[in-house]
Amino acid sequence: MNRIKQLFGIQYPIIQAGMIWCSGWELASAVSNAGGLGILGAGSMYPEVLRDQIKKCQAATNKPFAVNVPLLYPSIEEHMQTIVELGVPIVFTSAGNPKTWTQHLKSNGIQVVHVVSSVKFALKAQAAGVDAVVAEGFEAGGHNGREETTTLCLIPTVADSLDVPVIAAGGIGDARAVLAAFALGAEGVQVGSRFVATPESSAHQAFKDEVVAAGEGATRLSLKALTPVRLLDNAFAREVLAAENDGKTVEELQALLGRGRAKKGMFEGDLDAGELEIGQVSSLIDEVKPAGQIVAELVAGYQAMTKGMEDPRFQWA
Amino acid sequence: MNRIKQLFGIQYPIIQAGMIWCSGWELASAVSNAGGLGILGAGSMYPEVLRDQIKKCQAATNKPFAVNVPLLYPSIEEHMQTIVELGVPIVFTSAGNPKTWTQHLKSNGIQVVHVVSSVKFALKAQAAGVDAVVAEGFEAGGHNGREETTTLCLIPTVADSLDVPVIAAGGIGDARAVLAAFALGAEGVQVGSRFVATPESSAHQAFKDEVVAAGEGATRLSLKALTPVRLLDNAFAREVLAAENDGKTVEELQALLGRGRAKKGMFEGDLDAGELEIGQVSSLIDEVKPAGQIVAELVAGYQAMTKGMEDPRFQWA
Repeated sequence: MNRIKQLFGIQYPIIQAGMIWCSGWELASAVSNAGGLGILGAGSMYPEVLRDQIKKCQAATNKPFAVNVPLLYPSIEEHMQTIVELGVPIVFTSAGNPKTWTQHLKSNGIQVVHVVSSVKFALKAQAAGVDAVVAEGFEAGGHNGREETTTLCLIPTVADSLDVPVIAAGGIGDARAVLAAFALGAEGVQVGSRFVATPESSAHQAFKDEVVAAGEGATRLSLKALTPVRLLDNAFAREVLAAENDGKTVEELQALLGRGRAKKGMFEGDLDAGELEIGQVSSLIDEVKPAGQIVAELVAGYQAMTKGMEDPRFQWA
Repeated sequence: MNRIKQLFGIQYPIIQAGMIWCSGWELASAVSNAGGLGILGAGSMYPEVLRDQIKKCQAATNKPFAVNVPLLYPSIEEHMQTIVELGVPIVFTSAGNPKTWTQHLKSNGIQVVHVVSSVKFALKAQAAGVDAVVAEGFEAGGHNGREETTTLCLIPTVADSLDVPVIAAGGIGDARAVLAAFALGAEGVQVGSRFVATPESSAHQAFKDEVVAAGEGATRLSLKALTPVRLLDNAFAREVLAAENDGKTVEELQALLGRGRAKKGMFEGDLDAGELEIGQVSSLIDEVKPAGQIVAELVAGYQAMTKGMEDPRFQWA
């Protein structure tokens, strides 16, 4: 039995990443209703917005869904209280120390998954008592690890080192990458960028169009001195790069980034002055399509490959 | 039928990368004798050395083997003449324009494969008439692409864009990654770092031991301003990084690098002052073992996974 399906009580171990400004109740409920696990991205929500989003998601699906909470979120106590109070069954945590909240959530009957980018932090998450980890590679959009380990190299080392199941993330946008992730030792996949380009995503239409248009080499890992983040190339990203090359201090970089840039880009559609977080796999995304269709295509493609290992391409050993 | 097996007339589409200072006749013939394709790395050989190595490889195996020629090699005419004269059946080219030599080699009955790191250059190689391409991702050791596209994201886009078969490279060190590469659309794999840590490799024992010892985050893409190259962290790599951060010119970086650093590190075993080229997958390599055993393990592991898709881990769709 696949442990991720069992753990979450879902039909397919396909998880939609909880992405700031892109994943509200419409996207999360669509993915959960399609048999995967939808996630609300609480990192871009005020406490009252999260409360409202959870209620709307509960009204839109009777399947399990989760909330992603960045552990550095300023009003995290309020978020966690809302999550417990409203009976959210699963929480994904990221960007912080998993020791701080894991036991509190577990003692309230909530399953906890922590996002990591190295074996070192995967072991810390396991020691903190998480039920699973998401191991996310260098090609992923948004926040990223300092070691720059790619999904292909990260998943086997994490899977070899942990007892809890591993969910692969970074570079997964079609069924080929899903099978690759399972071959590497994952028991689930977390898909981000592909779900940005859906009608249900709360990303601005201009950002969705930009993700569809993105080609090879369109993203770059930036802000390495501050906290590495993969951005789509635009005027803002080039401004950040120039500031880094000019040897600006961490404080100057923080001032340039500000808190409003991500909202401006991804939610308000300012493609020049806004911050656009997306993964390398955007080069493979060439249309906006419904989230449920994406889940169905990932499952059907995976089935065709695993049942069809008679495909001559696989027959050489 | 697997097109790479057919093309080269080999038993398994497992190719040992032609790596400078590491892949002479002992390694190449061991891989070819085990059913894969061994490659001599001509980039670190004087013309008379290459001639001698080809003859020794021919004496050690009656199976096909290849020579890797970096197209920027200074005495390339002599190398190509030797290759034609001694009847080498396959040439892998890299680091340069595939138009320059492909037709000359083809007209001499030699199969030509070019190494690329982007769809853009893959299409150029195909237009130049190559029989296949190696598509190499960001995690690979040694010279690397400017787009920083990882193997997971690169292989599907290249496979979708080309008619000729694609060999995946970068991050492939065990059977899990081999299956992942085939899932992504490759019809062969090129394995580099794993074959450095073999008794047959001409790498210095101290470098082999360092590859075995390498853990997570031990490599980094360096010299981005000059020509990106993935190096194992050591005193030399830190010196290069410091020079880059100090804004040194391309000429100053070239002077620092010199021509002797790679030999000093990989061949002579100077782990401080030498340049050590290796991939991220070194974190998964934990012993020196014979090249033939590596090929056999890759094949057996692949067979077990593809025949054993009954493995509960794969059963979720």
